[in-house]
Amino acid sequence: MTLKIYADRMSQPSRAVLIFCKVNGITFEEIKLDLARRQQRSSEYKEINPLRQVPTIVDGRFKLFESHAILRYISCAFPGVADHWYPSDLFKRAKIESVLDWHHSNLRRGAVAYILNSTLAPALGLQKNPQAAAEGEKILSSSLEQIESIWLKGNGRFLLGSSKPSIADLSLVCELMQLQVVDEKDRDRILGPHKKVEQWIEDTKQATMPHFDEVHTVLFKLKAKLQEQRLSEANNKIESSKNTTLPSKM
Amino acid sequence: MTLKIYADRMSQPSRAVLIFCKVNGITFEEIKLDLARRQQRSSEYKEINPLRQVPTIVDGRFKLFESHAILRYISCAFPGVADHWYPSDLFKRAKIESVLDWHHSNLRRGAVAYILNSTLAPALGLQKNPQAAAEGEKILSSSLEQIESIWLKGNGRFLLGSSKPSIADLSLVCELMQLQVVDEKDRDRILGPHKKVEQWIEDTKQATMPHFDEVHTVLFKLKAKLQEQRLSEANNKIESSKNTTLPSKM
Repeated sequence: MTLKIYADRMSQPSRAVLIFCKVNGITFEEIKLDLARRQQRSSEYKEINPLRQVPTIVDGRFKLFESHAILRYISCAFPGVADHWYPSDLFKRAKIESVLDWHHSNLRRGAVAYILNSTLAPALGLQKNPQAAAEGEKILSSSLEQIESIWLKGNGRFLLGSSKPSIADLSLVCELMQLQVVDEKDRDRILGPHKKVEQWIEDTKQATMPHFDEVHTVLFKLKAKLQEQRLSEANNKIESSKNTTLPSKM
Repeated sequence: MTLKIYADRMSQPSRAVLIFCKVNGITFEEIKLDLARRQQRSSEYKEINPLRQVPTIVDGRFKLFESHAILRYISCAFPGVADHWYPSDLFKRAKIESVLDWHHSNLRRGAVAYILNSTLAPALGLQKNPQAAAEGEKILSSSLEQIESIWLKGNGRFLLGSSKPSIADLSLVCELMQLQVVDEKDRDRILGPHKKVEQWIEDTKQATMPHFDEVHTVLFKLKAKLQEQRLSEANNKIESSKNTTLPSKM
C-alpha cells in the first residue's frame, strides 16, 4: 500500500509535500494533474477531493487535502520523519502552528495575488490585473517584513530560531519560490530589502537538496521561458520604435 | 500561574478561545483590548504580540498567537479538555486540521471582507467599499456551499460527521456569528439557502451554552444598536421624501 500524492509541481503546496516525502525517504506514487489544463475538474478527481485542489494524498482508505494538514499527518504517520520537522514538544509545535496559520492570510495571500495578477494570469486563460497585483505586493512585502523581524528573530538559521527546518520553513519557502517566474527587476525590488529572508531561502534549499531543485525543475523551466518572452517583447518594442522614429529608406 | 487571554470580544477568534476555555472549565484571566480604540497598537502589547492582533495567550513564560494554534495548544496543555475537541486519533485529527486550514482562505476571507466593507467599516474609521463587499460575499457564499456539501456531509450534527463538536466547529461558527451585525435581509439572503449550516450553528451554540451567548453579548448589543440606526435612517429617508414631494404648508 503506497502513499499516493496527487500534485501539480507548478503548485507551491504540491511541491512542499513532494519535497518533504523525498527528503524523509517516504515511498510514494506521484499522480500528476495539470492545473493549466484543468485536469483537477474531472469527475474522477472530484471523488478524491471535492474541493478540486492540489495536493491531495490517499493513504490506503484515508484521503486528505490542504497541504499543511498533509504535512502534519505525514510527520506523525510515517515513523522515519525526524522530530525537527514537526516537534513532539508541545511548546515548539505550538509555535510552528502559529507560523503555519499566519501563512494563509499573509504570505500566501499576498504572493498568490501578486504573482497571478502580474505574471501567471495569461497562462491560466485570465487577464493580468495591475490593481490586484499592487494590492498583493503590499501584503507580500508586509509579510516579508514580518518574516524577517518576527519569525526569523534569533540566532538559528531557520524559523523560530531553530537550527533545523520544520514543515513551516518548507511550506513558506516553496511559496516564495513562486517569485522565480516574475520579472527579475520586480523580484529584486520585493525580495532585495530582505537579506535575512534571502539567506533563509538558501538555507532551506540546501537542507533539502537535491530534492528541492529536482522538484522545482518545472518552475525553473517556466522562469527561463518567460524571461525569453520578455526579452523578445523588449526587442520587438525597440525595433518598432526604430521603425517609427528613423526616416524610411523606401 | 493563571492563563492570560488578551482578547476583544468583537473579534471572532477571540470569542472562540474564550468560549473554549469556559466550556472546558479552564481558569483564565481575560485582558480586554478594544480594537476600535486601537489598544492593540500600544508598545506594551507589541512586546506580547509583535503582530498586534488578538487573541494572544500568555501561559507562564510562554506566549502564543493565532487562534487555531491557541486552540490546539490549550487542547493539549490542559488535562480537562475532552478528546472530541481535538482528537488524539491521527486520522480524526488530520481531518480537523484540514477544515482549520481551509477556514483561512475561504470562510474567514469571505466573511471578513463582506462584513467589514458592508457594515463595520465606519466604526473602525474606514469607508464602506461596495465592490470589496460584493467580492467578499462571493467567497463567503461559496464557502457556505462547501461547508454544507463537504464538511457537513454525513449524519453527525457537527463537521466531518461527528456527534460532538471540535475546535473547528467552534472557530467556524464564531466566524459566522459575525453576520449578526449586518442588515437582516442581507443575512437572510446569504445564510437562508443553507439550512444545514443554520442548524449546525444552532447545534454548536447549544453545545457550548451558556458560555456561547454570554461571550457574544457584546455582539448582540452592537446588532441591536445597528438595527436601530438603520431604522432611524430609513424613517429619516421617508420623512425627507415626504418633505420634498408634499406641498409645503409654509
